Amino acid sequence: MSMVGVIGYGVVGSGTVELFEKHREEISKKVGRKCDIKYICDLRDFPGDPFEDKLVKDFNIILNDEDIEVVAEMIGGATLAYEYTKKLLERGKSVVTSNKELVAAHGAELIAIARAHNCNYLFEASVGGGIPIIRPLNKCLAGNEIKQISGILNGTTNFILTKMIKEQMDFDSALKLAQELGYAEQDPTADIEGHDACRKICILGSLAFGKQIYPEYVHCSGISGITPDDVEYAENAGYAIKLIGTVKPAENGKVLAIVCPRLVEKSNLLASVDDVYNAISVVGDGVGDVLFYGRGAGRLPTASAVVGDIIDCLKHHHKVLALSWEDCFDKDYVADYKKDQVSMYVRIKAEDAQALKSAISEMFGKLMYIERAGRPDNELAFITPHMTEEDIDLNLAILSHSSEIASKIRLL
Amino acid sequence: MSMVGVIGYGVVGSGTVELFEKHREEISKKVGRKCDIKYICDLRDFPGDPFEDKLVKDFNIILNDEDIEVVAEMIGGATLAYEYTKKLLERGKSVVTSNKELVAAHGAELIAIARAHNCNYLFEASVGGGIPIIRPLNKCLAGNEIKQISGILNGTTNFILTKMIKEQMDFDSALKLAQELGYAEQDPTADIEGHDACRKICILGSLAFGKQIYPEYVHCSGISGITPDDVEYAENAGYAIKLIGTVKPAENGKVLAIVCPRLVEKSNLLASVDDVYNAISVVGDGVGDVLFYGRGAGRLPTASAVVGDIIDCLKHHHKVLALSWEDCFDKDYVADYKKDQVSMYVRIKAEDAQALKSAISEMFGKLMYIERAGRPDNELAFITPHMTEEDIDLNLAILSHSSEIASKIRLL
Repeated sequence: MSMVGVIGYGVVGSGTVELFEKHREEISKKVGRKCDIKYICDLRDFPGDPFEDKLVKDFNIILNDEDIEVVAEMIGGATLAYEYTKKLLERGKSVVTSNKELVAAHGAELIAIARAHNCNYLFEASVGGGIPIIRPLNKCLAGNEIKQISGILNGTTNFILTKMIKEQMDFDSALKLAQELGYAEQDPTADIEGHDACRKICILGSLAFGKQIYPEYVHCSGISGITPDDVEYAENAGYAIKLIGTVKPAENGKVLAIVCPRLVEKSNLLASVDDVYNAISVVGDGVGDVLFYGRGAGRLPTASAVVGDIIDCLKHHHKVLALSWEDCFDKDYVADYKKDQVSMYVRIKAEDAQALKSAISEMFGKLMYIERAGRPDNELAFITPHMTEEDIDLNLAILSHSSEIASKIRLL
Repeated sequence: MSMVGVIGYGVVGSGTVELFEKHREEISKKVGRKCDIKYICDLRDFPGDPFEDKLVKDFNIILNDEDIEVVAEMIGGATLAYEYTKKLLERGKSVVTSNKELVAAHGAELIAIARAHNCNYLFEASVGGGIPIIRPLNKCLAGNEIKQISGILNGTTNFILTKMIKEQMDFDSALKLAQELGYAEQDPTADIEGHDACRKICILGSLAFGKQIYPEYVHCSGISGITPDDVEYAENAGYAIKLIGTVKPAENGKVLAIVCPRLVEKSNLLASVDDVYNAISVVGDGVGDVLFYGRGAGRLPTASAVVGDIIDCLKHHHKVLALSWEDCFDKDYVADYKKDQVSMYVRIKAEDAQALKSAISEMFGKLMYIERAGRPDNELAFITPHMTEEDIDLNLAILSHSSEIASKIRLL
């Protein structure tokens, strides 16, 4: 009998148990041995729960049980989860998780511990919820040099932006609705400021380029500053505003990673990804561009990825599945995004905005002004040519003497 | 040194060699041993080819070389490729391929031979070109009960339909353009009649539901009958016409598989998949709907998937990777699609078409008439309610006494 433990019986933990138990027979067939969940570890009581008999409060019961081959760590955070994961891997028990915070903070180390103890640390669920992305990137696209990964990696912000785009809501109303529907937390900071998306793009970049990218070195800006006016300008120019995480190789073996709102051309499928859906676009030198789309969060979609990883671990017990990246303590591994070339949407306010046009054109050369119905006379919006962000900022610094820079959003 | 053989130095074969050699150092690093292509087997001469020194004409050189761990079979067809693949697997050499014809005809048998000889038969490239789909379906989504797979699986027909939709071309002109651009063969039958898409949906269905689905039992209709009028009606009703392969579970352990043109709602991402791109939508009970999108054919995209499989085989030499389905000789395993519920777009011609409206409404109950600019008086188009195709056909048989059934296209 191949046994599984689950630690943390919250939303995803209970979804994992439900999905696994629902398909237990089929999973046993796939694995080729009888499989079951033996323990669910949580400090809380769940009286009347259908799996009450499996509930334990002491983590050591799982750690010390020889029958347990795989543990699903569903605690979250990077403290207790880190400690538990290390202990389990050191005992040769595979660990699977949706814990992006932990993978982004300690992925390289935990993978190395797993390898050393002939077991696996898998985290398909940590990026894109149920969307298959870790394994495809690691295996199916292994023959490619990855040129760029860009993705809508956070469902909450995508829901808010969709409401702003499709229903002309302002940010605060859209956030309130997301909270009412349970898509946003009461403290929505990690989502709306882009920290959640940042962890995910770090995981994808670590996997694609072979070295750990730490979130603290990645520039991250959220969507709380986006206004309905920006949405309307973007719409008129053929773009949708999306919160996008990108990572790509930079010069001298570095990488460029950044999370920020971006104007995405409507012809790009990413612009059509609405509501709580996520999508990840990968460009490789062989495959060209591929896109993965689906529910990026939620109880059962995330559990789907967790259970897939559990099955893979059970099927390959004591076989190390190839998935790894090196640790990287070089603070300069993430290149300065200001040196990267980009086009920028800019909205300015100035008493006599029209009079600034000739100065702006002189600064930027060929640029595109965009319009919106009822644009006030004191407002101008334009898209800069492709140039380094540093140079754009220099120009905007000069412009800021005679106007207020109201918005500044990169193009994808 | 881990050695690879390539059999068949045509389009995909040469792409595979190019991509592998370009990334040889990186691949060796990923595999953890030095890797190279040792032989390229083809009966033709390639004077001046950069890999001329690797070319051999005798298959047995590859078969008998102990250094060869993996062979990429790029011959195509199900005769010589079948014989060679069997011989290689029986010697314990893993085989990877893009050969959908062979996998659809003999997948179960070849996977079983590989398993028995402690090697692997992988075919990520056989469906969707470079799009990762086989491995995600087999591994990442293993915790799901698959409810439906539907996909745009053929780039040639999707290119033709895109030209018909976006540029109002008729079928013949669009086909001619596709041939001029090299997207369609001189004999385009396998593409336009849906046989190519049929093999691919059979492979996906075999993998998802565990038993081999043979193409000969799957109803298959192509796009040669689609007219610009149909395209226009569909457009007006909010649909795009796409050639779609679908497979889903049916009653009594059977499956429903069918390839045909379908009206796809514009809100479905599949409707936005244009030109030679492919996309595959998978619905699972845990994950909900996920979609995989990319270049479904072409030299380097397909080679990307082949090289990914080569790397996986090299990494897991003498380890069997879990991927399999049973053979199935039950002709009734594929259920009768006429018993399935569907909505149908119907276009009829009749001298006094308007006069038939009351009879049609009586037959079908609540249905939707659709319009196009300049609709002639002798034409009517409508979408039936959701009902069995058998019942739709019974009604249309009656209607055919007083009108000509000009078009009949299923909705997705």
